[in-house]
Order: sequence, then C-alpha cells, then structure tokens
Amino acid sequence: MNKYAVIGLGYVGLGLATALSKKNIVIGYDINKTRIDELLHHVDSNNLIPLEELSSKNITYTHNLDDIKNANFFIVSVATPAYCYEIPDLQPLINASKNVASVIKKGDIIVFESTVYPGTTEEVCIPILEEFSQLKNGCDFHVGYSPERINPGDKNHTLKTITKVVGAQNENVLATIINAYKTICDNVHPVSSIATAEATKLLENTQRDVNIAIMNEYTKLMHALNIDMHEVINAAKTKWGFIPFKPGFVGGHCISIDPHYFAFKAKRHGIQPELILAARRVNDGITQFVIQSMIKLLIKNNIDKNNLTIGIFGISYKENVPDLRNSLALKLIKELREYGFNCQVHDPLVPLNTPKIKLDKFENVKNLSVSIIAVGHDYYKKIGLETFLLKCKQPNVIMDIPNLFATEHKQYKNLIYWNL
Amino acid sequence: MNKYAVIGLGYVGLGLATALSKKNIVIGYDINKTRIDELLHHVDSNNLIPLEELSSKNITYTHNLDDIKNANFFIVSVATPAYCYEIPDLQPLINASKNVASVIKKGDIIVFESTVYPGTTEEVCIPILEEFSQLKNGCDFHVGYSPERINPGDKNHTLKTITKVVGAQNENVLATIINAYKTICDNVHPVSSIATAEATKLLENTQRDVNIAIMNEYTKLMHALNIDMHEVINAAKTKWGFIPFKPGFVGGHCISIDPHYFAFKAKRHGIQPELILAARRVNDGITQFVIQSMIKLLIKNNIDKNNLTIGIFGISYKENVPDLRNSLALKLIKELREYGFNCQVHDPLVPLNTPKIKLDKFENVKNLSVSIIAVGHDYYKKIGLETFLLKCKQPNVIMDIPNLFATEHKQYKNLIYWNL
Repeated sequence: MNKYAVIGLGYVGLGLATALSKKNIVIGYDINKTRIDELLHHVDSNNLIPLEELSSKNITYTHNLDDIKNANFFIVSVATPAYCYEIPDLQPLINASKNVASVIKKGDIIVFESTVYPGTTEEVCIPILEEFSQLKNGCDFHVGYSPERINPGDKNHTLKTITKVVGAQNENVLATIINAYKTICDNVHPVSSIATAEATKLLENTQRDVNIAIMNEYTKLMHALNIDMHEVINAAKTKWGFIPFKPGFVGGHCISIDPHYFAFKAKRHGIQPELILAARRVNDGITQFVIQSMIKLLIKNNIDKNNLTIGIFGISYKENVPDLRNSLALKLIKELREYGFNCQVHDPLVPLNTPKIKLDKFENVKNLSVSIIAVGHDYYKKIGLETFLLKCKQPNVIMDIPNLFATEHKQYKNLIYWNL
Repeated sequence: MNKYAVIGLGYVGLGLATALSKKNIVIGYDINKTRIDELLHHVDSNNLIPLEELSSKNITYTHNLDDIKNANFFIVSVATPAYCYEIPDLQPLINASKNVASVIKKGDIIVFESTVYPGTTEEVCIPILEEFSQLKNGCDFHVGYSPERINPGDKNHTLKTITKVVGAQNENVLATIINAYKTICDNVHPVSSIATAEATKLLENTQRDVNIAIMNEYTKLMHALNIDMHEVINAAKTKWGFIPFKPGFVGGHCISIDPHYFAFKAKRHGIQPELILAARRVNDGITQFVIQSMIKLLIKNNIDKNNLTIGIFGISYKENVPDLRNSLALKLIKELREYGFNCQVHDPLVPLNTPKIKLDKFENVKNLSVSIIAVGHDYYKKIGLETFLLKCKQPNVIMDIPNLFATEHKQYKNLIYWNL
C-alpha cells in the first residue's frame, strides 16, 4: 500500500492530502511553519477544508523533511507564480524538487500537480531530482504529472467529481498513478506523455482568459455606442455554439498567470504568442476602462471630482473567496489612488487585519460619491442595491462590475448605474 | 397580407425568399442578370435550394426594380464584403438602399439582414432611404434589422430551426416584423434596438474567429514540442466549461470578415481592438505555418525541394461547399507558388472551369511529393488515405489540415504524416 507525501499544503495540496487520507496514510509537508501550526490545530485559514477532514487520523502535518522519508508516493503541489505577473517563477517548484530529491529512495514515484509550461517536469524537475538524489530517473524512481483543476468556491466541481488528467513516463508507472488517483477521483483520463498533461492545463486556462478578453474588448465598443452588452450576449446565446462568457475582472493565481507560462515557452521556440498576450493586456487593462468610464460619468453628471469618496466593495480575485492573489480589485484601488481619489474599501470575506490593504467595516463606509462593486460576493447580492444607495450622496453613482443589480437598478430613479 | 421583396438573392436572400414563398407572395430581386436568368430556369448554382422550392408558384425573380414596387415588406440581404479583406465595403448595401428607396411607399417596412457593424442601419442605410425616397423614417416607413445566421452545408441549423434575432425602431414595427419571421422561423428573439441586433451577429462570429485563433496559436507550440494538439484538446474536453474548438483554416465571407467590421467601428471610437485583430492575424498567418512545417519535413526527410509537385486537395473556404470567398486554401496555393513550388489542384465540388484557378481532375493529379489535404470534404474522407498514397512518390508526405486521417495514418509505415 502506498504511503503518500503531499508537498505544498496550499489550496491544492491540502485538499489532495485530506482526500487521500480517507483511504490512505498521508503526510502533509509545507515549508511554511505557520501553515503547519494552524493545520496541527485543525484550522485551514483558506476556509476550504472542514475540521473533520483536517483532523483525520490518517494524516499528519509537518515542516520537517525527515518526516516524509517513509513515503513512497510524492505529490508536489507548490505554487507556480510569476515574477512581475509575467515571467514564470519556478523557484518554489525547484525548491520542492530539491527537497523531494533529498528523501526519495529506489522505487518511489513523484507526481507533479503544479501548473507549468509543457516540458517543465522533464526539463527542470527531473534533472534536479536526479542531481540531488543521485538516483536515476525512469529506473530508480518514476515521474508523472497530473494538473490540478481545483475551482475554489465551486461546490459542484470537486476533486472527487472532476476528471483527473494524468501523464507519466511509461505505461507501468502510469497505471500505478491512475490507481492512486482512483482512490480519490471518480474519473481519470490518461494521456500519452507528461508534456501532454502539462499542455492540457495551460490550454484550459488560456482559453478561458482569452474568452473573457473577447467580452472585455467587445464591451468597450458597446459602452461607446450605448448598447447593453448583456442583452447582446443573451441574444447571441440563442445561436448554437455561442459560449456565454461575460466581461469581467480576471485575476487569481491561475487564469491571469497561466497564459504567461504558455507565452514564455512559445517565445523560446520562436513563436510569438500575440493573441494570447493581447488577451492578457485587454484583461489587465480593464481596470483603466472602469476608471475612464467613471470619470466620464462624473463629468457628464457634474459631480465634483475633488473631495470625492469612492467605496470599493470586494477585493478578492473572484466572488465568494478571500483569495487576494493577482486581484484586479486591488489593482483598481491602486490606480484610483494614483488619480488622487479617496477610496474606502470593504470585503466581507477578507480579515480586517489583512496586511495587503487597509479595510473598513461595512457600516463605516459612507458619504460615497461612487460605489464600485468590484467583486460579486453573494453577500453583496443578498444585502441588495438599496443598502448601497444608503451609503451614497446624491446623485448616486453605482458601478456594478459583476452585474449583480442589472435588473434591480431600474426601480430607482436618479440612480446613475453602470455595469461592465 | 404582406407582399415581400427580397433584395439580393445570394446564399442568404434566396433561402429567405423561397422560405417566405411557402406562405406568402414574394418577389426576388437581384442586380445580377445572370443570377436572375438561372433562377428563372430554376437553377441555384450555389446548390443550396432544391428545384421544387425554386419553382414555387408564389415566387417571381426579377432584376427590374419596377417589379418590386408593389411589395410592402422589403428584406435586404446583399453581401457586405471588405476591401483588401479588411475595410468594410458597404457599397452593395448603399446601392441596395438607394434601389429600395426608389420604390418604397408610405407604410412600407424595410428589414436589413446584411451583416454590418453596429450603427450601420441607422447611420448609413436610413439616411439613404430618406434622401432617395423623400419619405420620413419612423413615420412614412419603418426599419428593422435581423442578422442572418445561415450556415451553408449545415442541415441541422436551417432558417426554420435557428432562432431569429430581430431589432426595430419601435414596438409596433417590431411586432409586425416578428410576425413576418414567424411564418418561416420557429423561434424569434426580439432585442431592444437595431444596433443591439447588429452587434449580436458580430459578437457570434468574432467569438468563433478568436476561438479558432487560440487553437491555431497554441498548436504552433505543440508542433515545436512534438505534442499532439488533438490529444491535448481531447484531454481538455474532460474539464467542464472547456470548448472543443480545433485548429484550422478560417475563411469565407463571415468569420474572416466580420471581426474587421467590429474593428473598423471600434477604432472610430478610439478603441484599439488589439485582441480581435491579433486573432485575425493568427488565423490568416496559418498558411505560412503550414508552409514552414512542410519545408521542415522536406529538409528533415531529405526530399528534393526542386522539381517537386504538391497536390492541393480542396480549395473552398470550408468543407462540403463550393464557396471560394476568402478561401485560405487558395491563399495557401498562391503562397506556395511564390516559393516556386509546382502545385496541382483538385476540388470535387468546384466546377473545373472556375475562373479563379486552374483545377485538375482527380485522376490527373499524380507524382506528388507532398499531398496537402486543405479542406475536409466528405469526398476525401470517403475515398480514404490509401487513395492519396497512390498519388505520392516515396517517401509520402501527407499534410492533413482538417485532420481527416489522424487515426488511419497509423496503419502505414514510411508515411510522413502531419496534421494541424
């Protein structure tokens, strides 16, 4: 029976480790001592894994490498961020590979789940594993890759119900890895190589990024022409094959990063990824479009641009999660402040003491000239538009990025309503 | 009861006119006398409308404007091409508007179906209708817009079964237009304005163009890394929300043109459509990628680049139609000839005497060093890979753009097979 070590206990790794622990012995390893301490107290500060799963008797948490020496099946799920939001930062993956190399033995299997450009596992990770273990890849140890497909906050697509794509060095190790994942996933989809599995994940996220960018680029003209973009999307939905993406903020650690991983590798092969990088520019530039639109509303409605307070509601990268990584709401606030605008900021899910930004309690946000609902948390939908109006001076400007109150706003006269 | 005139009897107009004639009196008008002559002999050279529908007793064909004077409901379905494949060419639409203006009377309704950028009907067509009729828009006559959604060669999505999006100047005329379309379409989807209906069509086709461009850009790196793009797509399909577009040639009078209509209007409002134009460049540049890949294959396999004959199979803009408008296969041939390559060209659906290009009979295409299957006609699928191999010198290079023989080719040794 396999004994599992999961390296990196973030959003992906902790879910994997606790799922595996239902039927297997699992050691969860993280270099972050604070994270291990909270997990030892059965707390997940990401609010994703419930107490009963954290406290399974089959799982232990450690930040001591020695403790994972007895494992024979290693899953690496460390973050793969980007320098300056653009250049792949493989350092966490390199460090994890070195750590794993220091403990593996003959016969062990190492599976990478971190999102990478195709070729990373074979070109970057395996040479490190060989060098620091003094063992031979494909003979002493074996490697596979399986992209994580976790969608934080999505209760319908869970580790159990999503299909797990798996690639490996050869048929035998592939079969072993498939059996391991079958203990936690209903469906496993094998592919013919590690690089194929790596490429699959990037394609999924790149496609999503570009599709939202289409809507973001399109909606700019719709605003200029006074056409309701959402009515256009609803009409287009009546055509077979149309895919109802919506304009919106694209942030986070996946969709806004992964296309850069693709672009990085493409450029090294002389391929200019002009479309995929254009999509990134469109999506990143959407905060400027929001500000430009806001200033047009202020000028057209004779609202004093000086001594004006803007309320920003929601700062996470998407709705119903507290995750602030690459959040466009934070970028929006930064840019608004560069204009000299005074911003009050609220998020119902992010702790008030977050080091990233000074947050206000909801009741303290008031006397607003503009309310920008930046993230479509259910909390905001629930409290309703009326609650936002109470915070506003006359005339009320509401900028509704996630399009929460597209219908509701029609009840209110004298409301200057804008949605993306 | 309405008496209909359909202006422009091409792919769209003829289908509309014959469909309407099942329950209504219809006059079909076209400025092209040759087209009218063939229709009077109940022949459709586009092979779309069967004889029994062409010869309905309720329909007459004319190229004489006087003959449409008695109509009270005009549908304009002329082509909206582009100069140099990029700049909207509204001349056919302008001419049609002038012609209609010369015959309309008080109470008439004019509906435009030609694909245009949002604003065209109100900014371009209506002023012409007013000027040349000396009647007042919105009072003497009324205007609507309904985008055509015809998909030539698609038997599942027909005029009857597709949902018809309709916009109009006011509620009354909208209701009248909806009733008219309900005589031929199962479902009608009204929108709040003419410009909304115009924008809907462009969004649909732009989304499709960009999505194929994603795959075309992505597959370039997959080829460089020796990863099977189609295996990646099949693996990605196991994720919810992934849309299985495929790399391929994008041509024709819609998908390759409509994004330029969007871009034209966007630029006039200070919006740089960088994503949408990047997609166009990627899709248009794919012929160069095919040639580059072919040359790599020739060099790697020591195939003599001089005195080499390339067979091109399929020249239409897509499978199972004879339509050559903006065909990338034709562009590919032109580019191959610029390299000095000798090309033999076949298409089972295009008449041998087409003025566009010299075609060869299938049996006369032979002694090929390279076979490029450019269009996935069912004809080619049916005759099978073996038939192509008989035309080739050793070693056989088969370049399969539409991916017809991705499985079949594995049976053949010594075959150099490439797909997009």
